[in-house]
Amino acid sequence: MQQELKVTLTETIKILLDEKKFNTLRDILVTMKPYDIAAVFESLQDEKMPILFRILPKELAAETFVEMDDETQEFLIHGFSDSELKEVVDELFVDDAVDLIEEMPANVVKRILRQADKDMRKQINELLKYPEDSAGSIMTTEFIVLSPDMTAEMAIKRIRRTGVDKETIYTCYVTDDNNKLIGITTVKDLLLADDDDAVKDLMEENVISVNTLEDQEQVAQKFSNYNFLALPVVDNENRLVGIVTIDDAIDVLQEEATEDIEKMAAVLPSDKPYMKTSVWGIYKKRTPWLLVLMLSATFTSAIITSFESALSSVIVLSSFIPMITGSGGNAGSQASVSVIRALSLGEIQFKSIFKVLWKEFRVSILCGVTLAVANFIKLMLFDLNGRDNAFLIALVVSLTLIGTIIVAKLVGSSLPLLARKVGFDPAVMANPLISTVCDSLSLLIYFGVATVVLHL
Amino acid sequence: MQQELKVTLTETIKILLDEKKFNTLRDILVTMKPYDIAAVFESLQDEKMPILFRILPKELAAETFVEMDDETQEFLIHGFSDSELKEVVDELFVDDAVDLIEEMPANVVKRILRQADKDMRKQINELLKYPEDSAGSIMTTEFIVLSPDMTAEMAIKRIRRTGVDKETIYTCYVTDDNNKLIGITTVKDLLLADDDDAVKDLMEENVISVNTLEDQEQVAQKFSNYNFLALPVVDNENRLVGIVTIDDAIDVLQEEATEDIEKMAAVLPSDKPYMKTSVWGIYKKRTPWLLVLMLSATFTSAIITSFESALSSVIVLSSFIPMITGSGGNAGSQASVSVIRALSLGEIQFKSIFKVLWKEFRVSILCGVTLAVANFIKLMLFDLNGRDNAFLIALVVSLTLIGTIIVAKLVGSSLPLLARKVGFDPAVMANPLISTVCDSLSLLIYFGVATVVLHL
Repeated sequence: MQQELKVTLTETIKILLDEKKFNTLRDILVTMKPYDIAAVFESLQDEKMPILFRILPKELAAETFVEMDDETQEFLIHGFSDSELKEVVDELFVDDAVDLIEEMPANVVKRILRQADKDMRKQINELLKYPEDSAGSIMTTEFIVLSPDMTAEMAIKRIRRTGVDKETIYTCYVTDDNNKLIGITTVKDLLLADDDDAVKDLMEENVISVNTLEDQEQVAQKFSNYNFLALPVVDNENRLVGIVTIDDAIDVLQEEATEDIEKMAAVLPSDKPYMKTSVWGIYKKRTPWLLVLMLSATFTSAIITSFESALSSVIVLSSFIPMITGSGGNAGSQASVSVIRALSLGEIQFKSIFKVLWKEFRVSILCGVTLAVANFIKLMLFDLNGRDNAFLIALVVSLTLIGTIIVAKLVGSSLPLLARKVGFDPAVMANPLISTVCDSLSLLIYFGVATVVLHL
Repeated sequence: MQQELKVTLTETIKILLDEKKFNTLRDILVTMKPYDIAAVFESLQDEKMPILFRILPKELAAETFVEMDDETQEFLIHGFSDSELKEVVDELFVDDAVDLIEEMPANVVKRILRQADKDMRKQINELLKYPEDSAGSIMTTEFIVLSPDMTAEMAIKRIRRTGVDKETIYTCYVTDDNNKLIGITTVKDLLLADDDDAVKDLMEENVISVNTLEDQEQVAQKFSNYNFLALPVVDNENRLVGIVTIDDAIDVLQEEATEDIEKMAAVLPSDKPYMKTSVWGIYKKRTPWLLVLMLSATFTSAIITSFESALSSVIVLSSFIPMITGSGGNAGSQASVSVIRALSLGEIQFKSIFKVLWKEFRVSILCGVTLAVANFIKLMLFDLNGRDNAFLIALVVSLTLIGTIIVAKLVGSSLPLLARKVGFDPAVMANPLISTVCDSLSLLIYFGVATVVLHL
């Protein structure tokens, strides 16, 4: 419903823009949220964008700019005069400015930095030094600092005086003379306290903080575990250098989930939305794994070829190959996905590997027997009904299913844990790679069982 | 590093508990976060839990209780006296109480409701009426209400007076005499305003709210799009009935990502962590899809059987079946996962289906040709080197690869969109189901091409 309305509104805005009804447009735009205005921009023709952007009030313009995708941002910057660019840059929070700079080509970056005032330029340069995906790279350096000897009343006054250009005022950080973090307090605590309570008595001293170099995924996971609105970032000497706010943490959680899902489907991860990625860009993300997996299927081909004579004597065996490798692949990916997600959410560690294997072993016996029985009945009643050796062939296929599912579950659950142990990303170990391993193993089991039971 | 420390601390707590050093234990526990204390509980022997719980100060005890898993909660409640249970229930926020009640068996629920005071019991019963996974089911009814004619100073006073037992005080809701939501304002705006500014002049009137029945995933997505800390929930008459806070929205985003991942791997979704789910529970989640997928492989078997005579004359063709179906499955799941994730994040809608198909068609030609060329070279140099008809067989396999990948990408990208259109969950359309469809189609292409090229 709301989706539909947004589309209609976009059409209205386009018509008003064509008719140059700028005052009406401004009245409409100021009632909208930055995220929705950005969506309107992304659907406009290029030449219309600068006109619409100039209609926006300064602060809303900057907030909308932050929500746009890279291409729209770059296009707009190219059309900006220096003073227009300065107006936008002045309104940005430091961490948003850094995000922008990381996505823009070098010549645009130079223009942005030239327009930023000296203090902001210094802060931007500090933040750019941190490695990608670290806490330092997503933090902001604008936050409220209190000293321990202030009273609650003084603290509130300070917040009222300095809060305007801070990304959050609700969590305040208490530091000593050396800028070391000694406690945190919240506006809630300060408001609910008596006016002359001292900050040092109100503050929480057991602060959970993260190091500038800590991985952003772990940082985001802390928000989800502890229900924080902001998390302080400290250097190796425990000096407070920035904070990460919850809106950035949510973005990280979403990005990391997308990355995991992409890796599980053998797609190289990217941080661009699907519709914004070019055909060539998608091709480059997908082909490497397709090639690797195709080449690794050489093993399965070789196994089948080496049993060529056995196959040619009971040719019907080859018709069950896709069902067997498919069931093995599905069983393996079920196990791997369960383990990968539990690793991502911090529910299990490598040391639980034997518990996990023992659990998967029991599950695989239950699953394997269920599938084997169902399959045996199906083969005897339908597929093999009336064939020579129907009973023995059905037995071969059903025994193979049990063996395949046990092996697939054990491989599927242990590979992600081993990957984590040696420092690889467990998600890469998911479906396709595990399928390839399971395919080979299930074929070996199949032909092994067939050779014994059918005396091939 | 921090993980290691937590483990050691758990050991220390166990030793102190054995030695009955309760004062020392209390000193340690009050420095810890509820989430971490809950983790300690979950690793304790059952009979130790009530002892440790009684050491915790009242408020911390309730906060810790909320973070525990169902089994630990249930076990503790069984050991509580009525007055102990009342102490915990009194400290819970209403939405946490509802979460607890939804997980507990009927006899425990009765005990909890008996201990809740009348007002809370009424609120709990209201919330329990909303359907599972709706905005109503995750909202809390404790929030700050202001009236439009208050001044900023009066508003702050009201917050200081009533804020203690509210889950968040930072977003305040302005309602008219009929309890209809007319605006929101924040503590930040109130603090930064002049004392005698009126709330009605400070408030934001274009409020984004959700209906009680809106799906929780869409609610959570709004937090991520608009950077809210809380979102108001209204009934059909736009009367304010509750708010959803960001900590609950994050939990929903995490849960929904897990569910999507599970569905993509043909696992029925559950809301229990992997290590807490019994072998039987995991079996029940995994077997249904394994059975369905195994039975659907009947199609592939039937296709292979119907080409039995062709296969027996060029038996080597069967050795490439796993590679071809595997490549098709992988190519299809790459496309489906990209589309499913874009749907989840609200980046595409059904109306984009032709854009998506045209994009995937171009990608699939690039991918298909790349794989076909690589495969042709490999077959000629290695696998088929020296065989009769090597060139023609390599040609059959390579042409099949191109056709398979085109079909797989088109099927993989369109099925999730169609599923969304007819109201199914797109994630269910992912890997395994698409693999089965792709397997059959790729075999038909394979034998079709082979029949023509090799004159079988």
